[in-house]
Amino acid sequence: MSLTVVGSLAFDAVKTPSGSRDRMLGGAATHFALAASFFDEVRPVGPVGDDFGEDELAILRTRGTVTDDVEHVAGGKTFFWAGEYHDNLNQRTTLRTDLNVFEHFEPKLSPAAQDCDVLFLANIQPELQLNVREQCENARFVAMDSMNLWIDIARDALVRTIRTVDCLILNDEELEQLTGAPNTPAAAQELLGWGLRAVVAKQGKYGAALYTEEGFFALPAYPLHPVVDPTGAGDSFAGGFVGSIAAHGGGPVSHELLTRAMAYGTALASFNVAEFGTERVARLTGEEIGARVEELREMTRFELEPLALRA
Amino acid sequence: MSLTVVGSLAFDAVKTPSGSRDRMLGGAATHFALAASFFDEVRPVGPVGDDFGEDELAILRTRGTVTDDVEHVAGGKTFFWAGEYHDNLNQRTTLRTDLNVFEHFEPKLSPAAQDCDVLFLANIQPELQLNVREQCENARFVAMDSMNLWIDIARDALVRTIRTVDCLILNDEELEQLTGAPNTPAAAQELLGWGLRAVVAKQGKYGAALYTEEGFFALPAYPLHPVVDPTGAGDSFAGGFVGSIAAHGGGPVSHELLTRAMAYGTALASFNVAEFGTERVARLTGEEIGARVEELREMTRFELEPLALRA
Repeated sequence: MSLTVVGSLAFDAVKTPSGSRDRMLGGAATHFALAASFFDEVRPVGPVGDDFGEDELAILRTRGTVTDDVEHVAGGKTFFWAGEYHDNLNQRTTLRTDLNVFEHFEPKLSPAAQDCDVLFLANIQPELQLNVREQCENARFVAMDSMNLWIDIARDALVRTIRTVDCLILNDEELEQLTGAPNTPAAAQELLGWGLRAVVAKQGKYGAALYTEEGFFALPAYPLHPVVDPTGAGDSFAGGFVGSIAAHGGGPVSHELLTRAMAYGTALASFNVAEFGTERVARLTGEEIGARVEELREMTRFELEPLALRA
Repeated sequence: MSLTVVGSLAFDAVKTPSGSRDRMLGGAATHFALAASFFDEVRPVGPVGDDFGEDELAILRTRGTVTDDVEHVAGGKTFFWAGEYHDNLNQRTTLRTDLNVFEHFEPKLSPAAQDCDVLFLANIQPELQLNVREQCENARFVAMDSMNLWIDIARDALVRTIRTVDCLILNDEELEQLTGAPNTPAAAQELLGWGLRAVVAKQGKYGAALYTEEGFFALPAYPLHPVVDPTGAGDSFAGGFVGSIAAHGGGPVSHELLTRAMAYGTALASFNVAEFGTERVARLTGEEIGARVEELREMTRFELEPLALRA
């Protein structure tokens, strides 16, 4: 069994109220792989340039991640993103995006990567996501992310891609934008009608919500102060969420399993934002994850006692 | 035992994507009383004008609410608010606010209202809240709401008032504005340092979070489509929250009791927004509330199974 993820491998420059980094390992596939590596053997697929060296590959290989499908483009430069987060950390300004080797990326998966049990399509052009999805025709569970840009400029391709996967993980506002629905519950109902097994609405600092035909489930974000760097939070969430599903081997992906996946996603995201870039999750332990999901359960559990209400 | 609430009794005109009402019963004390009346005998304190008639009093008296402290100002007109909600229902424009009899309101509580077990200070000038709080010196549990206006123009009085109560229920952004903290967990920690037993952060469509010295608890809003009219949602939440605490009689207000109160608050708010004004909660039943808090428990419950994580 293994878990394949396609998406960006990058260098990021970020500035937040807690400090800044000029150049650190980043990218959706990187954050996803570091989080998911606790649960299964992960194979990230994506291009890097000459500037992506052994130090970066070593971080990516944490907990056994296989980097055979990291494509080295000779003479190229790795994707670079620079951004700044403002006071409340909910808004960010992109200062620079250099696609570099990503501009002409055509995903060619090795047989081992194609033969994955579970697949995650991180946020890249929908056409590329669809291409990868079709290369992994035996995958038992396929989840994907996207962003408002693709809803704006490639909606048809995005919809075609969504119709081939099991689970869409998107910001709540993007779910509404994608469907034209006035709120997230309505957007999720519409999307379940497209054949999805599950819709996950990411709500930033408020947490995340899960919609399936069987029901609704929501979990708050772990209350953290300070949040040092939100970069990669969504991909770490996806890594914990999708990873924990992969860890459960064969069998149907039940609503109950998806609720547990929400807890692992929330836990991984909370560690990710506690330090810059990959710093915290790279040295995270399974015991810390176990303790945090238990804490999340305590933070959302309540008991009802019989209460005689007045009429 | 009884539950006193001081706040506005009003007529509202609202326009939402679902429709409009030119003039309907509203006001914070009204919405609070209708929700809290399931749990205890409620005494609303507030002024009304000649235009507030038997029809309005009859709605207010639902489930035994005592209207002896509703002060009729002869020759006056009842507080009037008109507003419009926009597409996503999270932003509203106030079209008109006529304070009318509220402009010269000086709360004079009857001995029965003063002798309350539990007190809620709905959103009015902090000086008036403090005045009422001091009239109810034997109250076992006192909670209050406020708004950004008072943080802007009467912060000192607001802080003085907060320091005399047990629980502050405020929008998360207002908690941050009040304390200057960069996020809600930090704001709540600061406020617990002021001597509060509990801080409740209202998060609109995302739900609400509870902070005490013992821990953190959060509950999503009930997923509802369509939301017809959000007016009074916060006060209905407070009515369910504070009411369910009042229903538990004497004894300490434990963290566990507060988590259960969050469920009742969330349930009452969800019914409030399903129709215009007081329409839904006025005809609500205890059975419906019981079913909804059970549903909320299901929507937030997850089980953890031992999972061997990779190292």
